[in-house]
Amino acid sequence: MERLDTLRINPTRMREDFRALAAIGGTGDGGVHRPAFSEAHLATREWFRQRAEQAGLAVRVDGAGNHSAFLGCGSSGAPALLLGSHLDSVPYGGRFDGPLGVVAALEVLQVVAEAGLSLPVNLEAIDFTDEEGALISLLGSLALAGKLSLADLQTPRGGREALQAGMRRAGLSDDSILSAQREPGSLAGYLELHIEQGPRLIRAGAPIGIVTGLVGSCSYVLTYMGRADHAGTTSMEDRLDAAQGAAAFTLATREAVLRNFPDCVANVGAITLSPGAFNIVPAKATLWLELRAPDAGQMEKLEARLLADAHLAAERFSLSLEIEMKGKHYPTPMDKGVQDAIRSACLQLGLKWIDLFSGAWHDAQSLAGICPVGMLFVPSQDGASHSPREFTSWDDCLNGANVLLQAALRLAMGQV
Amino acid sequence: MERLDTLRINPTRMREDFRALAAIGGTGDGGVHRPAFSEAHLATREWFRQRAEQAGLAVRVDGAGNHSAFLGCGSSGAPALLLGSHLDSVPYGGRFDGPLGVVAALEVLQVVAEAGLSLPVNLEAIDFTDEEGALISLLGSLALAGKLSLADLQTPRGGREALQAGMRRAGLSDDSILSAQREPGSLAGYLELHIEQGPRLIRAGAPIGIVTGLVGSCSYVLTYMGRADHAGTTSMEDRLDAAQGAAAFTLATREAVLRNFPDCVANVGAITLSPGAFNIVPAKATLWLELRAPDAGQMEKLEARLLADAHLAAERFSLSLEIEMKGKHYPTPMDKGVQDAIRSACLQLGLKWIDLFSGAWHDAQSLAGICPVGMLFVPSQDGASHSPREFTSWDDCLNGANVLLQAALRLAMGQV
Repeated sequence: MERLDTLRINPTRMREDFRALAAIGGTGDGGVHRPAFSEAHLATREWFRQRAEQAGLAVRVDGAGNHSAFLGCGSSGAPALLLGSHLDSVPYGGRFDGPLGVVAALEVLQVVAEAGLSLPVNLEAIDFTDEEGALISLLGSLALAGKLSLADLQTPRGGREALQAGMRRAGLSDDSILSAQREPGSLAGYLELHIEQGPRLIRAGAPIGIVTGLVGSCSYVLTYMGRADHAGTTSMEDRLDAAQGAAAFTLATREAVLRNFPDCVANVGAITLSPGAFNIVPAKATLWLELRAPDAGQMEKLEARLLADAHLAAERFSLSLEIEMKGKHYPTPMDKGVQDAIRSACLQLGLKWIDLFSGAWHDAQSLAGICPVGMLFVPSQDGASHSPREFTSWDDCLNGANVLLQAALRLAMGQV
Repeated sequence: MERLDTLRINPTRMREDFRALAAIGGTGDGGVHRPAFSEAHLATREWFRQRAEQAGLAVRVDGAGNHSAFLGCGSSGAPALLLGSHLDSVPYGGRFDGPLGVVAALEVLQVVAEAGLSLPVNLEAIDFTDEEGALISLLGSLALAGKLSLADLQTPRGGREALQAGMRRAGLSDDSILSAQREPGSLAGYLELHIEQGPRLIRAGAPIGIVTGLVGSCSYVLTYMGRADHAGTTSMEDRLDAAQGAAAFTLATREAVLRNFPDCVANVGAITLSPGAFNIVPAKATLWLELRAPDAGQMEKLEARLLADAHLAAERFSLSLEIEMKGKHYPTPMDKGVQDAIRSACLQLGLKWIDLFSGAWHDAQSLAGICPVGMLFVPSQDGASHSPREFTSWDDCLNGANVLLQAALRLAMGQV
């Protein structure tokens, strides 16, 4: 291991790769706009294929559109250790969320290839499809893990028509996506480098975060129903105003979390009133609610509290209420062995770390239960995320990539 | 006048007309969907032209798209007494609001024509353009009154693009709309029959309401601005959530009116959050606010109270706030002489009436100050309005039409 311990990623090459990706779909304010299957997103994948070929790596694209660069450093039948992240972004998002993990993974493969190492596993740098969920959150990793069904593809959160249009643009089909499932025995593990998307590393002054688990989440569509009336001639007392229920519930979500769930979050991300006119009392209000919690117990308590609050708001304004669950993901602990490998790499590189929980979901949760999974975080200035304000210092990016390299080598050698 | 007192509208013919209109753009639940310049709305105007021609009346369409049926029962230079209402509806509205006044006006002209009367005025049954304000509230009547400017046409409440598209569909232009202005001397007055849009006539057991004035109103677009953040990784304390400001203000509007402004109303009719995703804290919330008051003093006090509440909600959640006034209309008293004519008609027909204020605006407010204006209301079951639940019994419709006829004759003869 001594020789392996001296390996480092190539900072100049990685920086060039990072800058090349940040320019694709750049929005001019430091951010990028690359929803899955958009023109800019497809351009990043073209870049990925060319870059991998140029580095002498084999390029593989599976039926779900997942892009891989493959290094056969193990025997031909050996399982693959997956390293990676994603090249899609949320609408008008930042340039670090996803691409940092992909360029670092490409670096790891190139460093291992240049060192001419033989390892007990092969290495695969992977760019998963639609991590951010323009169509289906974690589409590519769920397909690879065999956790996506034909039914899931019929009722995506973003609507079936949008999914079909995206599949057409990327040359995918329902059948091809389902064919992307891999044999669990073919996977040695999955490890991802990502920005934190929160302020804990910055506040702790630590360059590395070892992720102990990924948050659980539930999403709901709530619909308050009252009655459309003329807003000039109907007294306030005579109204059944759906907007009042929506407003009361929106305030209640924040208050419930602040009061009793300090480790959780909840968001009302969209509200639609209909018919939606200055002079008509809203008959219907539709809200998009998402809540997240670090463990199943808190998740279910918060869920029960918020749904009770939703009904209280309906009763207060004599409205009816429909509640539709759109998704429910239980918290996902990260593999202890993978956490140990990251910790060992930090010790060897002399980097301070803290253990932390991820408030965001990631492709690692798709692969949990299929193979050992883990993640490491680097600091994100001001905790900015899903925003053009995302920024991680270049030193922190390099430190993260070197920890990824050293942790991957430890996992590959089975030393932890 | 004795002979005139015996004239009555033709109930069978009026009912056929009413039913024909209710079928155009019918939504299958008793309502109609006929926003100005929609296909269904343009179809009602085609019906109007054919129906007027069939009745032997002259058809006139002015540059603002206002449709008139004209009866030359006076001398060629005599002013016209306008009777009418509108054939457009709010989105998914009711079948009585507007069409009842138009079919009753057509009836009055036919009854006068059949009686072969010569009067000191000509009669004109008019269908005004876009009373409900899909593009510009009261567009047609404001243009006819010369109260619409080129600037108004550049910044309509519904957006310039929507107005331009509507104008194209109807064959109108900025210039043609402004050319619709009439000489005040050419107008003998304006009288409209309409459903009440509130529960006062039903509660009073009166078949006729004599309108003493129209409500004043202000409309605003308020925009709360916070910051887009990842809704899974940003703690509740660290958020600048525009939805919270919007929610607090929506509740505050209702509470302010209930507490201190019993004769007023306020409505938050639309809320838009952006970017509008389950997992992004809303950076921006846009609200459509409208308030109405029976007199200028209350209107200005309520306006000041609500704008102060809007700022309080911004401060509470550390948001910034932009406020844009979209319209301000002071309350409009109805002409005393026209009220007397309606009262005299009720006495002659033996119908009970009450005086009341209109919480809705109507084309009469455009014509106020240009010529004598007035309105009469008939009961609306449950006070329903701008809803498929609108219903007025046929007896009440007939009574209203006969009062319109008799009041119009009194105004025409100058007897009041």
